[in-house]
Amino acid sequence: MLQNDGFRALDRQMCLRLLARVPVGRVVYTKQALPAVLPVNFCLDADSSVLLRTSAGSDLVRAIDGAVVAFEADEFDAATRSGWSVVVTGRACLLTDADAHAPRPAGGPDSWMPVRDDVLVRIESEVVTGRELTGG
Amino acid sequence: MLQNDGFRALDRQMCLRLLARVPVGRVVYTKQALPAVLPVNFCLDADSSVLLRTSAGSDLVRAIDGAVVAFEADEFDAATRSGWSVVVTGRACLLTDADAHAPRPAGGPDSWMPVRDDVLVRIESEVVTGRELTGG
Repeated sequence: MLQNDGFRALDRQMCLRLLARVPVGRVVYTKQALPAVLPVNFCLDADSSVLLRTSAGSDLVRAIDGAVVAFEADEFDAATRSGWSVVVTGRACLLTDADAHAPRPAGGPDSWMPVRDDVLVRIESEVVTGRELTGG
Repeated sequence: MLQNDGFRALDRQMCLRLLARVPVGRVVYTKQALPAVLPVNFCLDADSSVLLRTSAGSDLVRAIDGAVVAFEADEFDAATRSGWSVVVTGRACLLTDADAHAPRPAGGPDSWMPVRDDVLVRIESEVVTGRELTGG
């Protein structure tokens, strides 16, 4: 699946709607010149950027602050061989204190893990692509 | 979750056992100097490499043949806020006809989509890391 053209492309609005209904996505970035990926909890900001909460001193923040990253979320059902995948590509940046006080949905993204010295990272949704697999 | 050290690291054997029980993972690579990610069906080879089937002329093959990529799979449960994530990092290579006739599990990976001029791509499991989130 998802390796050829036999898919329905999803428009930006549909992609954002799908993203909003899952709690976990994956940050895709480069770490020491190698491709890297990390699942994280996230939410969407008012301007449809991806927001995630992490520790100020984390490897993730060091690797992605200021860099262009991809962010992927999906849902698949093995029984029907159907599902969807959405990828946001854009610049990641650590939010400053001033940014962090801007209004955002219900206090920002929840995290399933306690986070020390938490900071918010925003990934701008510059390019949003998505595909739906409708099953065979 | 997965942003700090509050996780149980999984050993290679457990990582491979978890990988073997999910049908979909995500190839993480670089495309035109940007991070890219694509969900695919996969299986594990006898030597624990990741095998996936795709179209010979696909963008994916062009981008990853000969390159070091990451391959990620995970399962999370929102109700218990628990789950696991495994990442394989290694070189991807298109299998030649000779390679493709080597024994492998039940004909190799199934694909949820019809694939034209199908080829097999192997990702060597050079580095395998995994983490378990046991829930709060």
